[in-house]
Formats: sequence, C-alpha cells, structure tokens
Amino acid sequence: MGGKVKREKWSENFSEWYNELIETAGIQDKRYPVKGMNIWLPYGLKIMRNIERFIHSEMERTGHDEVLFPALIPETEFQKEAEHIKGFEGEVYWVTHAGLDPLDVRLILRPTSETAMYSMFSLWIRSHADLPFKVYQIVNTYRYETKHTRPLIRVREISRFFEAHTAHDSYEDAERQIREDLEIFDRLAKFLAIPYIVSKRPDWDKFPGAYYSLGAEVMMPDGRTLQIGTMHNYRQNFAKAYNIQYETEEGEHEYVHQTTFGMSERLLAAVMAIHGDDNGLVLPPTIAPIQVVIVPIPKKDAEVDVFAYAREIAEELRDAGIRVHVDERDIRPGRKYYDWELKGVPVRIEVGPKDVEGGKAVIARRDTLTKEVVERAEIVEAVRRTFDEIMENLYNRAREFLESHIKRVDTIEEAKGVFENRRGIVEIPWCGEEECGLKMEEELDAKMLGIPYPEETAKAPEGKKCPVCGREAKFIARFARTY
Amino acid sequence: MGGKVKREKWSENFSEWYNELIETAGIQDKRYPVKGMNIWLPYGLKIMRNIERFIHSEMERTGHDEVLFPALIPETEFQKEAEHIKGFEGEVYWVTHAGLDPLDVRLILRPTSETAMYSMFSLWIRSHADLPFKVYQIVNTYRYETKHTRPLIRVREISRFFEAHTAHDSYEDAERQIREDLEIFDRLAKFLAIPYIVSKRPDWDKFPGAYYSLGAEVMMPDGRTLQIGTMHNYRQNFAKAYNIQYETEEGEHEYVHQTTFGMSERLLAAVMAIHGDDNGLVLPPTIAPIQVVIVPIPKKDAEVDVFAYAREIAEELRDAGIRVHVDERDIRPGRKYYDWELKGVPVRIEVGPKDVEGGKAVIARRDTLTKEVVERAEIVEAVRRTFDEIMENLYNRAREFLESHIKRVDTIEEAKGVFENRRGIVEIPWCGEEECGLKMEEELDAKMLGIPYPEETAKAPEGKKCPVCGREAKFIARFARTY
Repeated sequence: MGGKVKREKWSENFSEWYNELIETAGIQDKRYPVKGMNIWLPYGLKIMRNIERFIHSEMERTGHDEVLFPALIPETEFQKEAEHIKGFEGEVYWVTHAGLDPLDVRLILRPTSETAMYSMFSLWIRSHADLPFKVYQIVNTYRYETKHTRPLIRVREISRFFEAHTAHDSYEDAERQIREDLEIFDRLAKFLAIPYIVSKRPDWDKFPGAYYSLGAEVMMPDGRTLQIGTMHNYRQNFAKAYNIQYETEEGEHEYVHQTTFGMSERLLAAVMAIHGDDNGLVLPPTIAPIQVVIVPIPKKDAEVDVFAYAREIAEELRDAGIRVHVDERDIRPGRKYYDWELKGVPVRIEVGPKDVEGGKAVIARRDTLTKEVVERAEIVEAVRRTFDEIMENLYNRAREFLESHIKRVDTIEEAKGVFENRRGIVEIPWCGEEECGLKMEEELDAKMLGIPYPEETAKAPEGKKCPVCGREAKFIARFARTY
Repeated sequence: MGGKVKREKWSENFSEWYNELIETAGIQDKRYPVKGMNIWLPYGLKIMRNIERFIHSEMERTGHDEVLFPALIPETEFQKEAEHIKGFEGEVYWVTHAGLDPLDVRLILRPTSETAMYSMFSLWIRSHADLPFKVYQIVNTYRYETKHTRPLIRVREISRFFEAHTAHDSYEDAERQIREDLEIFDRLAKFLAIPYIVSKRPDWDKFPGAYYSLGAEVMMPDGRTLQIGTMHNYRQNFAKAYNIQYETEEGEHEYVHQTTFGMSERLLAAVMAIHGDDNGLVLPPTIAPIQVVIVPIPKKDAEVDVFAYAREIAEELRDAGIRVHVDERDIRPGRKYYDWELKGVPVRIEVGPKDVEGGKAVIARRDTLTKEVVERAEIVEAVRRTFDEIMENLYNRAREFLESHIKRVDTIEEAKGVFENRRGIVEIPWCGEEECGLKMEEELDAKMLGIPYPEETAKAPEGKKCPVCGREAKFIARFARTY
C-alpha cells in the first residue's frame, strides 16, 4: 500500500532540491538583503530548537555550564594568539565606528569565541579545584565567506553556533574530554538518525591555534561531505597566550590544557539532506515540531463525525506526550497530504467514515510512504512503534548510503574514477608527509578529511604504498569533495 | 522564629548593593574588556531562561510565531524611515570592513529590528487573510550608550532583547493588539511578582517612528523608576516607508497598521532590585533555578542518617516537579545558609537528627527569613503552600512600596519636595502643552513618564491648573528620576 519514495531530484540535482526546499518547507527565507545572511522562519526555527534542546540536556548531563559572552571582541584581545589571528583575519567583520565617531579600539564580530572567553578564563580559573572547567554557549557568529554561500551550510552569519570550551589539569584529562565530546556527538547523531565518520584533520587543515583537530562528516546526496562537528585539543597553546594558570595541589602554577567542541545549524542541513526525498523533508520524530498530523476525510451523507473522531485521537496522543495536529482546513485531503509531506511530518493518520464505524485508523509513514490500518484502541502504541521503526529505517537507509559511498583504493587513477562516477569518500594509503597529501588533494581536486579516528583504525595495511612517493604507507587518508 | 529582613544597604546605597550583587550572586561578570558589555554567568542565565520560558509560552498562547533575523542591517534599509534614523543614528555601531576590505554597503548592528524586518514583511504579507501577522524574537541588540552603563539596565549589548512585531488590517485591530500586549505583560509581571504602572509617553519621548508609545515602569529601591516594557502603535508610518500593503476583501490595496512590544534583561534587574534585601537575591519560586535547597545538619554521635533523610525528601519534591538541591558540602550549615540566601533560593529545608526522629522538617522562607516546623508527611504540600505565600508576600510588599512612592501634588514646589525627600513618582496636573511639560522636566530635573494609561484614568480632576501656565489642566502627568 501507499506511494513510492522518489529520490531522483534529491540525488541528481541536490543543490536545486535543497535551495528550493529551504524555502518551500518554511526553514529559512533567503531574500534578506545581505548575502549569506538568512532569516529563520517559524517552522525551521522550531526544528532547530528541538535539536538544541537535546544539546542543552546533553550539556547538563555532562556538567557543562551555559554562559553567554558578548558578540564583540576588542582587536587587542583578538590579536593575542598568532596562529588564530592568521586563520581568521581574512574573514572577520570589523566594527570601526559607533554613532558618529570612530572607536578607539576597533571591535570584531566573533567568528568563534576563544579570544572573547580566554582572558576571562584567566580570572575565573585559580586552582586545581576549579578543574575541569566546562562551559558552552549557542550564539550568532560571523565569517566573511568569499565562497558561494548556501543557507545553513556556508553562511556569513552562523546564527546557531554551538561552542563548548573546557580547561583541564593535564593532557590526559583533555583527551578524556575529547572522548566525552565524541560520545555526546554520537548520542546526538543517533537522536537525528544520521550516521557519520570522524577524521583527524591533517596538520595543514587544523583549527587555527589547535594542537590537533577532529572533524565529523556526513555524506550528502550528491556524494560531497559536510562537516557537522569538530573537536579540538589546544594543549596549552591558548593558555599561554591568555595566561590561564592554576595552582596545583603542591602549590605550583601550571598552564591549563584546553579543548573545544563546535557544531551549528549545519546539523539541520544534514538532517534535511540525508533523510529528505523528492516530496520534501523527512523529519525524525525526535525533532519534528508536529510528529503526527491527523487528516479527517469526511464523505457526503456519512452519518458519523470524522472530525470528532480525529479530535479524540489527537487528545489521546497529546496525553501520551506526542506532538499532534488535526488538519481541519476546508481543502481536499490530497492537498493536505502534499503540504505535510513537504514539511516532513513523520506520521499521518487518515480517518474516514469507515474507520470511525470499524474503530480503525490509517497510519501513513513519511519515510516509506506506506500505509497501515490499525485498531483505534491501539493507536498510541501503534504510533510509538511507528516512530521507532522510522528512526531505525532512517538511520539504516542513511548508513547504507554512507557506506556505499566510501571506497578504498590504491592509486590516484582509481581515486579519480570514484570522484568521476559514484562520488563519495576515497580512502588512499598515505605515507604521512604533507607534501604527498597536498599533491593528492591537487590531483583529485578534493580535500583530505584526514585519517580515520581513533588513530588505531587509521593504520595502512602492511605492504601498502603511498601512491605519490611510493614509500611505505603509514596511514589510510580520506579524501572527499566537501561543502 | 528566624532572622529579620534587613534592607538598609538595599535602600540607602542601592547602586553599590546592585553592582556587588550582580557578581556575588553569579548573575553577570562585569570585567569583560568592552565597557557596557557583560558576560552572563550560569546562574544568572538560568534565571533569565526561566523568565524567557514564560514569555515563549505566552507568545505561543497568543499566536505569535518565533522568527530569527540577522543582526546586521544594510545602511540602505536602515535609512528608509526618517524619524527612526534620526532617533538611532547617534547610537548605532557600524560595520565598515570585512576581512581586509571596506564593505560596499556599510552595515549596522541592529539597535532594534524594524528596519531589518519590514522589507521582508512587504514580501510576506499579501492579503487580508495574512492578517493579523504576529512574530517575535529574542536577540542581541546594540546601542552605543554614552551615559553611565549598568549591568542589565543600561548596556551597549542588550543580549536578551525581546521584540514582537505585528501587522493589522485596521487601527482598531492594532489597538486590540496593544491591549493583548498589556495583558501578556500583566501576566508576566504577576509571574515575577512585580507591580508596575503604565504611562503613555509624551510626544517628545515616543519611540522614533511611533504614533504613540506606552511604557511600563517599576519602582526601584532608591525611588528611581525603571522602564521594563514598551508597546508602540506605529499606525501606517513604517508600512508606508517599507511599502507593506495587503489586498482587502474588495481587492483594494491598503497599508497595514503595525505595533511592537519590547522587553529585555531589565526584567531580571527589576526582579533583583524589587525583591532583594541586604542578604542578597530573593527569587520568586516561579523563576528560581533552585526552588528548594535542603541542608542536612548532622550531629556527632547521632544515630540517624540526616543525609538519607534529606535525599528522600529531595526525591519526593523532585517527583512533585519541584527544582530541589541537597547541599552535602562539608562546611558549616551557617555558611550554607549564607550562600543560598545570597542566591535567593526561595525555600530552605533544614533537617537535623531530631527532625529525623520526630518525622519533621524545618522550612525557612527567604523572603521573610522566618522558619516553620512541618510534618515530614506533608512536606510537598507545605512547600507548595509556602511558594504561594512567598509569591503573595513579594507582590504585596512591592506593591506597598510602589504605592507609597507615588505622590499627587499641585505645585512645582511640592514636586521638588518629593524628589528631595522620599523620592518616587510625582503626579502633577498638566495642560497638555509640550512647552509646559518640558519646563516641568527642567525644573524638577526629572523625566515625564507620560500620562496614566488607559487615558480615561489620565484626566485631571476638575478645577486643577497646570502649575507652569496656570491654564486648566487636562491631564495628570507623571514625573520621575529614571534609570
């Protein structure tokens, strides 16, 4: 029963599919008169808030405190860490005047908050008893992107930027934090039903000022990857620049070790892209603002009240904590189906006179576009079971897609073939030298995501050679065309 | 039983009391290296989030949709409404460069979002069926204040700026919206236990571009007033500047009528100032991050486990939906009392060995600093009743304070006396002429808040004269020293 999932436009013209859906599904309006800055529409914002609610609860669970720093950073603070400035100076917005006067000290709009936070950390952190110190915020940040912009993905105002910042008494404890970040990220990805891979970035692509950087990527419908999470271990680099010291139990003064963990509205872009189809959004029930829409289908001369029946079901679902909406608009059911499929509502319940008479209801799944008749008396249970099935199906479908788009090869030619045909990620043996890595990036017109993480999984099998220099390969390196 | 509420420093050196408490209670850190921009600390942010949660639920109840606009506005958009620019051009921050290059079109950091939103409204609003159109957002806004800054009250980054914007098909419907805003505001004020007055601002103090402005004020401990809410009716002023038209049922094109409703983190400043005392914050249970703190008081050689007893009570309160914390730190109870009083936790429960043995607990109220022994079995009920009593007491105490600080006088001399002695608001008969109003402001070194709202309550009693020109007074005008 039911329709068939079509993903032709989704895969063959993903860019157009995405740009249209952003607006037709009510996620964002792109017509704001500053390029790369978009307006959150109510429906999109509700989905994002549901994602953030989960993030807040994970932060609480893991003992991170929420803070909120100003968006403006004095030039003098921004300039304290050399690599960091070098990495960002080409893309920051400068506030130079206030009212009619030039400012004495120019201000930048934060591209990220290290340089806003760390002079305060040096005041807040005094002793080993203050460590680990863990804070986070979700804020608007600004980057003057010169590349082609795209809503939620490459923007000049990242309006939902999540950043956790931590300080520790040792490198080991900072490493423990990175593992905790990865665990939080994994729980979030499960909550969104999105499979991902984690890579340790090559040195030439680390976050400016980091000792090392990890990136989590998902596979987009067109075979390009999207980075949706990063974790950085800074070691004592920023601590030295901002003088963040603590007193040890022995009374010595030591610099703290620091980490950060970052995400953004790209999470929503990933959900849209990974689960969607030609009919529109497909939302995981975990984050759908409306989880169930009920469409009453009245028939002329029917003696039963389908509206009352629909409202009763809604009431019962609502009491069970399910977000439900009854669509009582005076338009044809087909039009309603279209609207709610576009918006990705996970479950649609249709009720006609026969359902009322027989004590039944029809449950239609958004992910598979299939229908099932269920007993009225078991409706809550049936909806809950359907949610579980949807989550599982979304995750499995996406995992298969991801896995089928990772290809291990031995030569540059093979790698080129992957990018020409089925696209995705290629894994190539690599000697570990920057020169060879950069050469491969150039030859493949692709980015090195890095080596698989944890590093135990990154070792090249014995006997594999780096295809550039011919030496023994140390690692498997991942390459992809990226967003 | 119990201590005595002291409000000496609170009233006699309010400014110092406030500036200290902001930091000692963990609301904000003022040491950020940009003047007038402060850092939200975890505890303060939690309180503010609880206030905002109520605002979000009121917005949902009244059919406002949440949106999120970019913080940057092109100069060209900002300049479309003449009075608005005139009102704000002296206090906006200018973004003039991005990366290493000057921008083609300079951007301002929003001081408020009319000029960001209204060109989009002209795209979104098409027909009478789209009206009323009601949206809101809570965002960071920027004003280059040249006056003395003060955390939460007068800042250069208003980081929790609430703004609702609506469009209507008639002046009457816009007026209905203003009444709805006032009702929402009243519910919020009750939720915070803060009494207030509403005044219609004089023409020379309207919001730039408004047809009229209403302001809601509270009375601060030092007798100055603080504006914590504003409602503006714009009539068709912005609609004409931004070409926001709709098609009527008859197919005509008409400009919409617009209103706005604004609030900010000043709400928290009001709560702090109005309810606090010399011991620190006094939070209404509605917004307290911790509503009940339980302090176990172990005694040497006692055979009962006060900690287990405390945890059991906590469990039971938590199950009843109460936010509770057990303070098991290894420090003296007196020190714990001090900490939690500073942070304004509404109810403290003390349990010692005798309480365990007798099946009792001691409930201490933060607002009155009194104690009561209650039965262990009735603890949930007792706490709930205490919350109600606290809300009522806080509101009544603050209402008495407000009412005792409003004085009706007939002459400038009498008014001057009020400002010299007990301070507060003076109400003076006024002919309604700007010249006389400005003259009174000058003589009194005070601001005219406006006339009481609704206007029916603003009429001067018969026979009263304007003390400046001696003509028949039309209105009662309110004056105050303001924050």
